[in-house]
Amino acid sequence: MTAKPTLTQLAQQLGAELRLVPGADADQSVSGLSTLQDAEPDQASFLASANYRRFLSGTRACAVLLSEELAGECPVTALVVDDPYHAFACATAIFDIAPRPAPGIHPAATVHPDAEVDASASIAAGAVIEAFARIGAGVRVGANCVVGECSEIGAGSRLYAGAVVYHGCTIGRDCVIHSQAVIGADGFGFAPHRRQWTKIHQLGGVEIGDEVEIGACSCIDRGALGNTVIGRGVKIDNQVQIAHNVRIGDYSAMAACSAVAGSATIGKHCTLAGGAGVIGHISVADGSHITARTLVTKSIDSTGSYSSGTPFSDSRSWRRNAVRYGQLDQMARRLKELEKRLESLVHREGTED
Amino acid sequence: MTAKPTLTQLAQQLGAELRLVPGADADQSVSGLSTLQDAEPDQASFLASANYRRFLSGTRACAVLLSEELAGECPVTALVVDDPYHAFACATAIFDIAPRPAPGIHPAATVHPDAEVDASASIAAGAVIEAFARIGAGVRVGANCVVGECSEIGAGSRLYAGAVVYHGCTIGRDCVIHSQAVIGADGFGFAPHRRQWTKIHQLGGVEIGDEVEIGACSCIDRGALGNTVIGRGVKIDNQVQIAHNVRIGDYSAMAACSAVAGSATIGKHCTLAGGAGVIGHISVADGSHITARTLVTKSIDSTGSYSSGTPFSDSRSWRRNAVRYGQLDQMARRLKELEKRLESLVHREGTED
Amino acid sequence: MTAKPTLTQLAQQLGAELRLVPGADADQSVSGLSTLQDAEPDQASFLASANYRRFLSGTRACAVLLSEELAGECPVTALVVDDPYHAFACATAIFDIAPRPAPGIHPAATVHPDAEVDASASIAAGAVIEAFARIGAGVRVGANCVVGECSEIGAGSRLYAGAVVYHGCTIGRDCVIHSQAVIGADGFGFAPHRRQWTKIHQLGGVEIGDEVEIGACSCIDRGALGNTVIGRGVKIDNQVQIAHNVRIGDYSAMAACSAVAGSATIGKHCTLAGGAGVIGHISVADGSHITARTLVTKSIDSTGSYSSGTPFSDSRSWRRNAVRYGQLDQMARRLKELEKRLESLVHREGTED
Repeated sequence: MTAKPTLTQLAQQLGAELRLVPGADADQSVSGLSTLQDAEPDQASFLASANYRRFLSGTRACAVLLSEELAGECPVTALVVDDPYHAFACATAIFDIAPRPAPGIHPAATVHPDAEVDASASIAAGAVIEAFARIGAGVRVGANCVVGECSEIGAGSRLYAGAVVYHGCTIGRDCVIHSQAVIGADGFGFAPHRRQWTKIHQLGGVEIGDEVEIGACSCIDRGALGNTVIGRGVKIDNQVQIAHNVRIGDYSAMAACSAVAGSATIGKHCTLAGGAGVIGHISVADGSHITARTLVTKSIDSTGSYSSGTPFSDSRSWRRNAVRYGQLDQMARRLKELEKRLESLVHREGTED
Repeated sequence: MTAKPTLTQLAQQLGAELRLVPGADADQSVSGLSTLQDAEPDQASFLASANYRRFLSGTRACAVLLSEELAGECPVTALVVDDPYHAFACATAIFDIAPRPAPGIHPAATVHPDAEVDASASIAAGAVIEAFARIGAGVRVGANCVVGECSEIGAGSRLYAGAVVYHGCTIGRDCVIHSQAVIGADGFGFAPHRRQWTKIHQLGGVEIGDEVEIGACSCIDRGALGNTVIGRGVKIDNQVQIAHNVRIGDYSAMAACSAVAGSATIGKHCTLAGGAGVIGHISVADGSHITARTLVTKSIDSTGSYSSGTPFSDSRSWRRNAVRYGQLDQMARRLKELEKRLESLVHREGTED
Repeated sequence: MTAKPTLTQLAQQLGAELRLVPGADADQSVSGLSTLQDAEPDQASFLASANYRRFLSGTRACAVLLSEELAGECPVTALVVDDPYHAFACATAIFDIAPRPAPGIHPAATVHPDAEVDASASIAAGAVIEAFARIGAGVRVGANCVVGECSEIGAGSRLYAGAVVYHGCTIGRDCVIHSQAVIGADGFGFAPHRRQWTKIHQLGGVEIGDEVEIGACSCIDRGALGNTVIGRGVKIDNQVQIAHNVRIGDYSAMAACSAVAGSATIGKHCTLAGGAGVIGHISVADGSHITARTLVTKSIDSTGSYSSGTPFSDSRSWRRNAVRYGQLDQMARRLKELEKRLESLVHREGTED
């Protein structure tokens, strides 16, 4: 469904004010979106960050989404909006070419007779829907996905090829779950016993709110007792690991390779950058921002930005400094000793300067 | 199979001493398990850590698994055991509601005529069992799993939906392999040649002992020459990466996102916390504990706990300190110079104090 | 296809000079490859690193691939080559026993009538080929793989069981994609709007060059606008994450668990060691080497080796030093203050020494 709206239609759909340059045609159709630098004359573009302002004057786009302040600089037709980045996001939905499968159950899918699949849902080839699973209206289950017993997929959600939902999990409405994501595998729980491990069967489930997106190869484990809970509007990137009984607050976002250990609680509106980690049984305050690769090892009580790690450098300098890291405590003691000795020396000499 | 044992039956199954509070009924059925705080009156609970002792007096559970020392404080029926955490683990097996598929090959599964599948095994829809694979007694292969040529799954093992075992791999008895885990993909081996890479075909396999659990999206590569070997009773969490020719000793445990590079050897009874890493061609002594995100870069010869990394803090303080990290060697030299100068100054002045 | 070449044939295929020891038979067949230490008398071995030279004298291999310089020390038949490691890599191809599926579409595969599958390609059970996908000559698509609409798999490429290629992606010739790898999932793009997230639909695709290998559970996201591009001959290990609009230059290699954030550019002939990371919107110069777990936070302009992180130690020492890390800036200031005070003291006292 490659829509080709006219400039007028596009403005209308985005709530933008259309300011045509002389010679422009409000009925010109727009074939797609591109950056200011790469746009062809049949594509629209956007200016959402000062970093790209320098590309505005040279753009070949037929129209540019931008703010009132910068509209005057626009050499082509302007689509003036309050928030150009948000307007751009809305525009991408218009031009999205992702396949939209037709409703119905593919003959090569396997739907258990005790499962309930809404007539408007689409179940692709190779998908397996197990007993008592419920698939809501307009849901699209991709090829070779598996939805386990008694699990529920809310209306409008989409599972891409190969995603797996274990038994007894609940996915909200309008969620997107990418390929190879795993919802509801066992949490990692074992009791040590005679130098071996006794499995703690994971009796809880997973509960995912509405409008959640979960990236490829991400894992959200089921709870040990009680559920693992992902709040409304949470966005999770690829290869993210969320352990049993974690709670992620509404509208938080977790970039690729971030991880949260068992029973930790992440507040609302938090962002975890790529590779950030949170250890188990702690909590992170609403609105916290954790920078890339930071490991949070204690509860965070107040909103803010938090970091750990060392800067990178050429390996040779790094090696010299890294060796000193192992001497830091000793260095600190020597520093203190020096201060004491100098103090006593100065004291003996009389007042300094 | 939601079992509902009576208190008497539960005590019996767990080897616990039943101490009924006045008014309690030994024939009351127990419907499940919960924490001390959340338990409903038809649920049992447990007290395994001093941290939760404060919740004991207020619990509504019908019975609590705990040790002799704390039994006197228990306001409800006590189930007295030597090791409450282990007893709790055993109890979770009783209340586990994970679906138990019936034996047989689903009509939508594909089993190669040259494969051997035990009559008591269960092969779910969409699973593919390739030529000469052998599936043991009571094995449960989940939907859309793939077991490659000549691979073998030992009796009692369970593969959850979408798990993949390549050709020529051996999985022991009573193993659990979660969704999207990959056993036996090629190790990462390439010889540099004229600024390109020549593939080193990976001729070995993977050999997994009995009672091993492997988490979702974890990868265990096949050996280059000879096998990658996972010992008996090893427990591996999600998104763990084990490279070619690694050996993991019996009963070691690896938390999520940990990784071991090629040809490294991890001893028995080791624990790697979340995100821990071990570089290639080194060995880690039996019983070592590697803390979260630590990167082990040299062999560890003696049992102990090992760590690396920096503490986290607010980003502003972190930035100030991180910059200094790049000056550490220079700081160490300046410190030494100061010591020398002070020494010489003191020496010139005569004895200090 | 377990080839058993004779020594003469093996030498011929590898371009090696055969130097028979007395009593050896040039027509002896070689059954496989092993290390110098483990080789049985019917196996060949290789010596490619000085570290293993000590095993040469005791080897039981029937022949050893080695260089002219070491040929004199070889107690068994020598296969003399310029580059023993490369010759070994070539030899592994000869002895590879990975199953070679026959051409044809398995009856349990689902190929859309509008897809184009070359007659010489092999499509395994449970694989799903969607509309307008094109599968080239000799391609082998493993069990339960999914190739999305309009995607293209170049001649000679192999997808292992469960790999997923989304719609609109192009894979070059002679690529290898391992199980659970995901090519073309949505990049992680959301515009903040009224404390919620508006999805930026990802309108680009993925473009993968010839002779690329991609490991198990690795993810290469589709571009937001324009493509994510993986150059020719790039080798990617397991659990690697490549975000939208990244570009990886020809013949670069990325070890397991490495990650590159959005719109970053990695040059040609780079190597990223295990767990290395590169943040978004920066570039890394051709030929750079990033060591294990290093996080690259700024563009790298010149070839070299780059590192970050701290050395590991026993947890007790580590804890002492880690605490000091949080005091580093303060220590640096105190050091500077000491230098000033000492300077002024010396100055007051007259010249030092």
